[in-house]
Amino acid sequence: MLSVLLALLAGQVTPPAKPTPPDVPAAADWRTIPDDELLVMTLAGNRRVVIRLARRLAPEHVANVRALALAHWWDGTSVYRVQDNWVTQWGDQTERKPLPAGVTARPAAEFDLATAFAVGQRTDADAYARMTGITADGWPIAAADGASAWPVHCYATVGVARDASPDTGTGAELFVPIGGSARRLDRNYTIVGRVIDGMPYLSGLPRSDAPMGMYPTAAERLPIVSVRLESDMPAAMRPQYQYRAIDTAGYAALIERKRHPDPPTIGLGGIDVCDAPLPVRAVPRG
Amino acid sequence: MLSVLLALLAGQVTPPAKPTPPDVPAAADWRTIPDDELLVMTLAGNRRVVIRLARRLAPEHVANVRALALAHWWDGTSVYRVQDNWVTQWGDQTERKPLPAGVTARPAAEFDLATAFAVGQRTDADAYARMTGITADGWPIAAADGASAWPVHCYATVGVARDASPDTGTGAELFVPIGGSARRLDRNYTIVGRVIDGMPYLSGLPRSDAPMGMYPTAAERLPIVSVRLESDMPAAMRPQYQYRAIDTAGYAALIERKRHPDPPTIGLGGIDVCDAPLPVRAVPRG
Repeated sequence: MLSVLLALLAGQVTPPAKPTPPDVPAAADWRTIPDDELLVMTLAGNRRVVIRLARRLAPEHVANVRALALAHWWDGTSVYRVQDNWVTQWGDQTERKPLPAGVTARPAAEFDLATAFAVGQRTDADAYARMTGITADGWPIAAADGASAWPVHCYATVGVARDASPDTGTGAELFVPIGGSARRLDRNYTIVGRVIDGMPYLSGLPRSDAPMGMYPTAAERLPIVSVRLESDMPAAMRPQYQYRAIDTAGYAALIERKRHPDPPTIGLGGIDVCDAPLPVRAVPRG
Repeated sequence: MLSVLLALLAGQVTPPAKPTPPDVPAAADWRTIPDDELLVMTLAGNRRVVIRLARRLAPEHVANVRALALAHWWDGTSVYRVQDNWVTQWGDQTERKPLPAGVTARPAAEFDLATAFAVGQRTDADAYARMTGITADGWPIAAADGASAWPVHCYATVGVARDASPDTGTGAELFVPIGGSARRLDRNYTIVGRVIDGMPYLSGLPRSDAPMGMYPTAAERLPIVSVRLESDMPAAMRPQYQYRAIDTAGYAALIERKRHPDPPTIGLGGIDVCDAPLPVRAVPRG
């Protein structure tokens, strides 16, 4: 041992290689997202935003979103609301555009999951829930007890805007949190997905001083050129995405390192459900 | 009682007025922020950002910030980093501009408060701290036990950028969280203040794809015209600001209503330390 140390000091031996960092997933940990669960929104200026739909969390609202995309309903609508430290919102700013056939006008709210949800990775209790975690397929959820759970609003979560009554959101008007906390929307608004690519095109927009951050003039609104399900796009134009599975030893090690990072960084001993990384990558089609 | 009810049904009696909502502070709850604790940063395009300095939390770093402002050191520097879901940062992008006299080159880190801190309003435990709250004068803090405490990084908190070693930040390079969570900076970076006006000018900037969100070209950087302490500004140009005192029954009622809002909003029973409102207002000078 001493001879190794002395050799090291003399620069004669290279130190042992660091173990593979836990944030490098194994090839088998990447899972393909089905084309009909990927929504591609193209904004003016060829800015592309990709949303992964949360079909298991909100089946009826996601069915509406898919019907709206298949009808090309969002084409020609706009991003019309950007409120600082809160949300960016898009859809039909007049809220009067007729909905296409196949869209349920008043779906029941889907912000409480009736049953317990399998968690692939536990995160820590917070001010809003005794239990939190990430499902094996990458959705942040919380629970009050073992019998029920609900999806949580993190940065980049896509939620369903609505009027005061919980069943007034169809999925035509959508929003995404762009600020510090949107957890008070939990159990009050339905979540239909998460922005997995192009988030800066929604978060980096000028904030509006008007009430609720609505853009008061047409010139301020950002036109939506098109919104498509990938399954409705020509094959050559379809980006393919994969998410990292959460129920793996490597991911657990990554979370543990975030709880207790290497010095000199001081760890705080826990990790917030919205602070757990949710890796996604774009890959060439095989 | 029944007669009142019947009269109400008949529209003959107005119902009792709703009590004053707890989010309307009494006049005495507004406290003036001293001019030498207000930093006014004017960006190109006459965009004004106002920062309240946290002198009690980080006296040595705030002294540096005051010295830099009095020397007009930031004039002609820039906002040079905007990383999505993370921070906006400003100062001298070359990190080579000489510091003026009176600035301590390597102040000791000030991210742990040596003693317990009086809390005006308790907020709830989270993934990162067993105890959290807001000081009577409006600074969010956390604690592991009764004997020590630390300021926490929320949206709009102003922190001191630095190299790997904790004592390498002078206060010349500053950052502000613009995304979902920056709590992993707690106990690792020194906090010198909070943006109290003009935050959208820092949060609504285009994100950079370059490493760490640095703007790679001079054209992307947003020029800083000037940074001044209000005490160094002509009286006619000084906006006056007041913060709402936190150690009042009205503020406690506001927090309690956020924990348990009126139906149909579903309350989650708690409030995160970074989700507690910190009201500030601009007022005419008397």
